[in-house]
Amino acid sequence: MRTQVAIVGAGPAGLLLSQLLHRQGIESVVLESRDREYVERRQRAGMLEQGTTDVLREAGVGERLDREGLVHHGLELRFGGAGHRVPLTELTGRTVTVYAQTEIVKDLVARRLADGGDIRFEAEAVAVDPSAPSVTFRQGGRTHTLECDFVAGCDGFHGVSRPALPGARTYTREYPYAWLGILADVPPSTEELIYANHERGFALHSLRGPKVSRLYLQVAPDEDLSAWSDQRIWDELAARFATDDDWELTPGPITDKSVTPMRSFVAEPMRHDRLFLAGDAAHIVPPTGAKGLNLAVADVTVLAAALTEYYATGSRTLLDSYSDICLRRVWRAEHFSYWMTTLLHVEPGADEFARRLQRSHLDYVVSSTAASTSLAENYVGLPLEGVAS
Amino acid sequence: MRTQVAIVGAGPAGLLLSQLLHRQGIESVVLESRDREYVERRQRAGMLEQGTTDVLREAGVGERLDREGLVHHGLELRFGGAGHRVPLTELTGRTVTVYAQTEIVKDLVARRLADGGDIRFEAEAVAVDPSAPSVTFRQGGRTHTLECDFVAGCDGFHGVSRPALPGARTYTREYPYAWLGILADVPPSTEELIYANHERGFALHSLRGPKVSRLYLQVAPDEDLSAWSDQRIWDELAARFATDDDWELTPGPITDKSVTPMRSFVAEPMRHDRLFLAGDAAHIVPPTGAKGLNLAVADVTVLAAALTEYYATGSRTLLDSYSDICLRRVWRAEHFSYWMTTLLHVEPGADEFARRLQRSHLDYVVSSTAASTSLAENYVGLPLEGVAS
Repeated sequence: MRTQVAIVGAGPAGLLLSQLLHRQGIESVVLESRDREYVERRQRAGMLEQGTTDVLREAGVGERLDREGLVHHGLELRFGGAGHRVPLTELTGRTVTVYAQTEIVKDLVARRLADGGDIRFEAEAVAVDPSAPSVTFRQGGRTHTLECDFVAGCDGFHGVSRPALPGARTYTREYPYAWLGILADVPPSTEELIYANHERGFALHSLRGPKVSRLYLQVAPDEDLSAWSDQRIWDELAARFATDDDWELTPGPITDKSVTPMRSFVAEPMRHDRLFLAGDAAHIVPPTGAKGLNLAVADVTVLAAALTEYYATGSRTLLDSYSDICLRRVWRAEHFSYWMTTLLHVEPGADEFARRLQRSHLDYVVSSTAASTSLAENYVGLPLEGVAS
Repeated sequence: MRTQVAIVGAGPAGLLLSQLLHRQGIESVVLESRDREYVERRQRAGMLEQGTTDVLREAGVGERLDREGLVHHGLELRFGGAGHRVPLTELTGRTVTVYAQTEIVKDLVARRLADGGDIRFEAEAVAVDPSAPSVTFRQGGRTHTLECDFVAGCDGFHGVSRPALPGARTYTREYPYAWLGILADVPPSTEELIYANHERGFALHSLRGPKVSRLYLQVAPDEDLSAWSDQRIWDELAARFATDDDWELTPGPITDKSVTPMRSFVAEPMRHDRLFLAGDAAHIVPPTGAKGLNLAVADVTVLAAALTEYYATGSRTLLDSYSDICLRRVWRAEHFSYWMTTLLHVEPGADEFARRLQRSHLDYVVSSTAASTSLAENYVGLPLEGVAS
């Protein structure tokens, strides 16, 4: 079995890469260990940078995004009993769009299959050879080998691609807290996202559409989900979002509950020989800055351009720059995500000096145009040299 | 013995307060435990915010400052073997001025004495009563009591005023490094200050004038000064300032050498009854952001305005707001000083992730206008409501 580009993983990175390559006449096969239903249902991020929506439109999967995505022009930082709007668009000229990762995956799967794309679900990659190059996978009880020109490892942190890249240096940070996230069938109590810093812990009010709310609570890393009844979750959210005025959080039926640990991770370089890592296979950010999905899209945008250049001209210039180009954006996002995480979360055991510094920092971020702009330009996504957006 | 305002400490805060009050016809006595020569010689800060030079001019001590002070429009951040200029004035419309604290003290002492001001050197305050109010001091082997309407505690972190303020909450942070500082009789190798981040540690190239350089090295908090020969100091400075081009550090005779520990400290409130703390008596910042002297000047500017209002109208409104007004500026400066310190110093035991974050942060600060402006507006001094400047 042979293809030009073997893509491991049918998340947004792998699927988008396949679609971008298809539009340039480059053939790929996507191998995904899970079934289609699972892939299309897992809850992940939902905040898209303008550069990300631009790429999705260019890739031909912007129709439903443009119809259903909610364009946001600001966000709220809430602390000390008051809300402070950060006017993202006014400060940067750019917008962000609320559109769930699951919806992007559905759009990409439908598009690829309609175009005759080769996505193999329940096909588990078990070995990646960066130099052959090839991917060995199991499907229907049998083992197959997919020969190729290049392998794109888009199979996340726990996939087989990352360990197949020899000699990578890794950088890690575990945070002393996690997010308890819920989906609820209730109209959001806010039009824009609310990032709340409260002495009881961080909370985030996000949304998935006009009738579905997504909310998060900072909890302990080893938090026992069974200790959190729906009532307790809503009470805790109400306490952390409480303001000095009459703002109210409307509770509703919770349809999904989970605890997500928070971690920063970078492997570099992101390439060895003919294996290229993209997305979570190469880097993890804590979710506070909403950068994970956007980084994955940026990676495969660069990779698609590099492969296109290679197949069109034989030049490996962009392929050879892939890791460096991506890592500049990655480290920016790593720093921003760390910064926004520590700005907003309550650090267990933090002394009073650290708490007062945090409050001073929050006051500054919402009172200085320069500081607000710094948050905003990172949140909407910084353009970086070499990254098409 | 009686006066209107008893001022403990003849540093820049106490002397400037005395001078500002004098210009409003308010009488004060300044008590200083050291002799005049000592006070006029101790090496301290030397970077003045524009708001600080404005106040000094308004106070009538701007003549030599305007003649000898070096107005700076930018500073350099140096890392990764290259320098990056932060154009302070271009970004903020404001300037900073290099003029040593010792010179300000000399100017203020001369001015007060010429105007018949009462500065008592070698008069050691031993007790402050915030409610009598009064200051007990020893001079010439005898104990005296200075009765007054108000006491201004401008006697620094180790003075008697701070412990005389009952019930203050304190906030502290010790940093795991110190500064080895030198004065050298050699023209500075730079026109603007250079803040260097190097894997061997932070270094700062400052200056005291066209012929005197002031340089600092990050060292251990318990560093043994005797282990640092002049040659070793210059070699280490050269290593930390090294660039990929042909920039060179010119060594010269070292005339002063000292190790300064780095600490953040805030006591709040800054006032109890008729005792008002100002400057280092109430707050300490690490020297990286050059904020200590400027905060002291801001404090006494507010205090002078409040006392002027009181004596002119009998109103205590501004006196009652003194602590709150000052603390807003103090916490901003505490955060900025912490931020700039951790941005530039090498944290002992920092993991690789932290080092890469720091580098990403440095890259961002010098490549984003918003981020550069954020540094610049704090460095030149943010105007805060209620603080005349």
